[in-house]
Amino acid sequence: MTLTLDVLNAADEPGFVSLLDGVYEHSPWIAQRAFAQRPAAGFPSLAALKHALASVVRKASLTEQLGLIRAHPELAGKAMVSQSLTAESTDEQRRAGLTHCSPEEFAQLQQLNADYNARFGWPFILAVRGPRGNGLSRRQIIETFTRRLSAHPDVERPECLRHIHRIAEIRLNDKFGITPTLGNQVWDWAESLARFSDPGFAEQGQLTVTYLTDAHRACAEQLTQWMRDCGFDEVSIDAVGNVVGVYHGFDDLEDAAPGGGSLRSHGRRLLTGSHYDTVRNGGKYDGRLGILVPMVCVRELHRQGRRLKHGIEVVGFSEEEGQRYKATFLGSSALVGRFDPTWLDQADADGVVMRDLMAAAGLPATMASIQALQRDPARYLGFVEVHIEQGPVLNEMDLPLGVVTSINGSIRYLGEIRGLASHAGTTPMGRRRDAAAAVAELILYVEERASAVPEVVGTVGQLQVPAGSINVIPGRCRFSLDLRATTDAARDALDADVRQRLAEICERRGLSVTLERTEAAAAAPSDPQWQQRWESAVSALGLPVHRLPSGAGHDAMKLHQAMPQAMLFQRGMNLGISHNPLESVTNDDTELCVRAFQALLESL
Amino acid sequence: MTLTLDVLNAADEPGFVSLLDGVYEHSPWIAQRAFAQRPAAGFPSLAALKHALASVVRKASLTEQLGLIRAHPELAGKAMVSQSLTAESTDEQRRAGLTHCSPEEFAQLQQLNADYNARFGWPFILAVRGPRGNGLSRRQIIETFTRRLSAHPDVERPECLRHIHRIAEIRLNDKFGITPTLGNQVWDWAESLARFSDPGFAEQGQLTVTYLTDAHRACAEQLTQWMRDCGFDEVSIDAVGNVVGVYHGFDDLEDAAPGGGSLRSHGRRLLTGSHYDTVRNGGKYDGRLGILVPMVCVRELHRQGRRLKHGIEVVGFSEEEGQRYKATFLGSSALVGRFDPTWLDQADADGVVMRDLMAAAGLPATMASIQALQRDPARYLGFVEVHIEQGPVLNEMDLPLGVVTSINGSIRYLGEIRGLASHAGTTPMGRRRDAAAAVAELILYVEERASAVPEVVGTVGQLQVPAGSINVIPGRCRFSLDLRATTDAARDALDADVRQRLAEICERRGLSVTLERTEAAAAAPSDPQWQQRWESAVSALGLPVHRLPSGAGHDAMKLHQAMPQAMLFQRGMNLGISHNPLESVTNDDTELCVRAFQALLESL
Repeated sequence: MTLTLDVLNAADEPGFVSLLDGVYEHSPWIAQRAFAQRPAAGFPSLAALKHALASVVRKASLTEQLGLIRAHPELAGKAMVSQSLTAESTDEQRRAGLTHCSPEEFAQLQQLNADYNARFGWPFILAVRGPRGNGLSRRQIIETFTRRLSAHPDVERPECLRHIHRIAEIRLNDKFGITPTLGNQVWDWAESLARFSDPGFAEQGQLTVTYLTDAHRACAEQLTQWMRDCGFDEVSIDAVGNVVGVYHGFDDLEDAAPGGGSLRSHGRRLLTGSHYDTVRNGGKYDGRLGILVPMVCVRELHRQGRRLKHGIEVVGFSEEEGQRYKATFLGSSALVGRFDPTWLDQADADGVVMRDLMAAAGLPATMASIQALQRDPARYLGFVEVHIEQGPVLNEMDLPLGVVTSINGSIRYLGEIRGLASHAGTTPMGRRRDAAAAVAELILYVEERASAVPEVVGTVGQLQVPAGSINVIPGRCRFSLDLRATTDAARDALDADVRQRLAEICERRGLSVTLERTEAAAAAPSDPQWQQRWESAVSALGLPVHRLPSGAGHDAMKLHQAMPQAMLFQRGMNLGISHNPLESVTNDDTELCVRAFQALLESL
Repeated sequence: MTLTLDVLNAADEPGFVSLLDGVYEHSPWIAQRAFAQRPAAGFPSLAALKHALASVVRKASLTEQLGLIRAHPELAGKAMVSQSLTAESTDEQRRAGLTHCSPEEFAQLQQLNADYNARFGWPFILAVRGPRGNGLSRRQIIETFTRRLSAHPDVERPECLRHIHRIAEIRLNDKFGITPTLGNQVWDWAESLARFSDPGFAEQGQLTVTYLTDAHRACAEQLTQWMRDCGFDEVSIDAVGNVVGVYHGFDDLEDAAPGGGSLRSHGRRLLTGSHYDTVRNGGKYDGRLGILVPMVCVRELHRQGRRLKHGIEVVGFSEEEGQRYKATFLGSSALVGRFDPTWLDQADADGVVMRDLMAAAGLPATMASIQALQRDPARYLGFVEVHIEQGPVLNEMDLPLGVVTSINGSIRYLGEIRGLASHAGTTPMGRRRDAAAAVAELILYVEERASAVPEVVGTVGQLQVPAGSINVIPGRCRFSLDLRATTDAARDALDADVRQRLAEICERRGLSVTLERTEAAAAAPSDPQWQQRWESAVSALGLPVHRLPSGAGHDAMKLHQAMPQAMLFQRGMNLGISHNPLESVTNDDTELCVRAFQALLESL
């Protein structure tokens, strides 16, 4: 029988625990504590219940957490063979095909189980039914198992817990008879869009879509097709390859052309969207989520025959990643009149000039046509963007959504410290001019200084002693420096401190240093009113509001130059990894993201 | 009129200062303080006087040191043009050809003077008459000027002072009518031997002599020729290409064949020598000094018609540097029965197998012939080796010679720390697994730990974040580790501490590490009696005895496995740099080294 929140909220403790029996394997203490801490009015949503249960585990002792993990069976392990699994585990392992392994696969899984248990002391946990609920293949399971076997225990333990929460989520969905249909629609679109990939990558099953390749143009065509299917009133591909869909608000309809002709909107619109290009060997959700989520919102409005007061303009930006040309944010730059005319003359690695590429793609390839894309801010309420977090924060907090406070300002340098290359054996410690030791001090100072202030980060990502020898004291050491902060003031203070310390280190050690600034981008703080709208939308789902900065740049950073903007982040699975095939979301999180977007639309 | 030590030692203060007038430019305070601190019995040698004067400057205040430097004229500067230089400076700048610069050279020197003064605030000082006293060319002067212009002020200031001491040394030699004829002989031989260089290097004026190349064999032939000229009784090239010269002691002469036939020695001999191969683009003195110094000692004995009680066997080892084959210490290994038979089958980078190379060079190329080279320790008193320091210690202390206490034991690792590559913008500081930050901690710990104990050194020479990106937190960082100490116990304690700290760092930061030991060599402490003989020889020159370990490996390390050994180091100029064309010695230092070797021979 299908469970409802009303029934659950009405239950006493034994009833509550009993109703949630089997959600967390052999661990009734989780439901018990969630009951004790439940809101006075009961759980407002299934999402709130899921978060409450996960929070109990996150706050439990290490012993309790390990007990929970160890309460789980091994994958295709002895318990499966002896048929002593719980009903839920039996079903999950059967759906993953683990009950029908070949002898080789079975032997491989037994070895992985043994190695994993020897390394960590607990069984490997994987939500085998997968994010869309359609199951991982045995090959995918074995690949994931092998990868996680080499993780650090402090990383792997919480990752196991997160898989346990995902297993619990799927079991709860079954209990409540819930199917995240909107999330599934976005999932299916993202899977379908990922079938287009550039030559050289497609063959290896890798996703790469760079500016105006065949795969890129196929994506654009696919998006226009889907937008039309969703019921957008106007759908087009603009002069820089952006896919633009407009769904009018009822403000506009007075001016509508009769008889199905082109509708002309004169009311103010909400602008939203994100990019459909990818990095090389990237993920399926970076950018695309921010196009597909508002698309499904429009589809739902259209299905219901509804229009909102304001029009909705969804843009699939053609270029954000700067992979093919040094023209990052090409698509959104055009909308704010910042398309650099010199970009047209740029050649890619194969010598293909952008202007020629555009012409070959059937675009006008003139600055006049590109300048015409600039939006009049007076015609727009503002810009919102949903995006996968691309970081670990929401994942670690067991939160599906987070509200962005600011897109960080950044400053980047390439540097080199020069000391004196001398003999590692014959030069006493006190007489060295070790360039690498100075960079080591810098790295630790950047770490310490950035850690001391919230919402500031600093990274030395590139590091090399050129032509270093095992027996030569580093005479040179090259490094990069990437400093980011939620405000320009915080960024500049970090920058000044780091540069001062660098100078001190070099002065004290008798070294010289060169530092070349390669980038400086201003911070783009979220518009307070729009940020508040996202916060209300998240609250309406029964979820706690977590505010966080965006460390990465996004199209919203460009639109910020013309109109108010605010972003919503959706949790990334797999430790939040992005720009990587392991980038992952769940259909349940996406469902919540769509519903947050719908709530924001309703609030306008 | 030529000055003598007796006259100088007999003088009162004004007389002493007056006699040394012009040695240090416009700075009588140096002679005044040296007088105040002179030994009761007066200066025992010119070397002692030179060291005393340099010590006054080394211990002077920074203001006094800068005053001394600023008392010097610019090279080819206004003072030269207006003919207001001291007589000494006029002579030196004239000899260097600076009074006959082309207009272009003069303009270049004026620009260098201006740039240098702007950077450092003092004039560029260069002992232009050069180590052999024969003057640097204008081209060499301009090259050196350009190189030192980019040095750190804390490096450049003492380097200027050392050039001032060298200028003073040459002026003192003039005053005392001294010519370092034995040092000059070694200098001339080293220059002459450096005319042989391997193909590809010779054309660029670079010195490279690797195992059994044409240049290498030419060096061997040249050495045998010079040894015969010196009066060695037996001279040969052995089965591994070592050049061996024997000068019999009078113990042996009973068994001498009459009428100029081959003399057979049956008494005990002193074994000495060093290597004549070089690293790629190396210096002229590394190794070769240790062959040429005893050669000139034998020449002097032979010229005087003298024999000592014991025979002297000088070996020019054919291979020490391990450049062409992975067979470091090949030459000395053969003498102690440690020639690895598998070396014969090794191919070099061009596929040339050592056995074939030996055969082509006319060597027997059999293990039997190589095994026959093993020396019977009972026939030898011990092994001594003189070598350029290849480090900065003696140079910084203004000491021509130093006595080696031990050839350091070493242990080497290649390591890699693995963390998690994640987005530099989106990963908060507290959630990072930064592999490079962990290596940074290791580098600073190695520096701190090695600095805390005398005669221990530790170096991270190789350092790299593979495929690092400016905006990605390092997920991997590779490094090398080179740990050395005068004793195996100190080395092992350092090793244990460093490895423990590395494990702690990785544990605390949640990282994994691999560490591969690539080398471990036992320390070779000097034989106390032989070390004492070197100390007595240095004392006899009127110089303070400074004891120091050898951080680099030397042939003596191999001979240590068969007999007592002890080494004498000679100061390297140019900050002690070695394995580099800038490697340099002075004829005066070499003269002292020869005289120390003679004193050691006389003491046997």
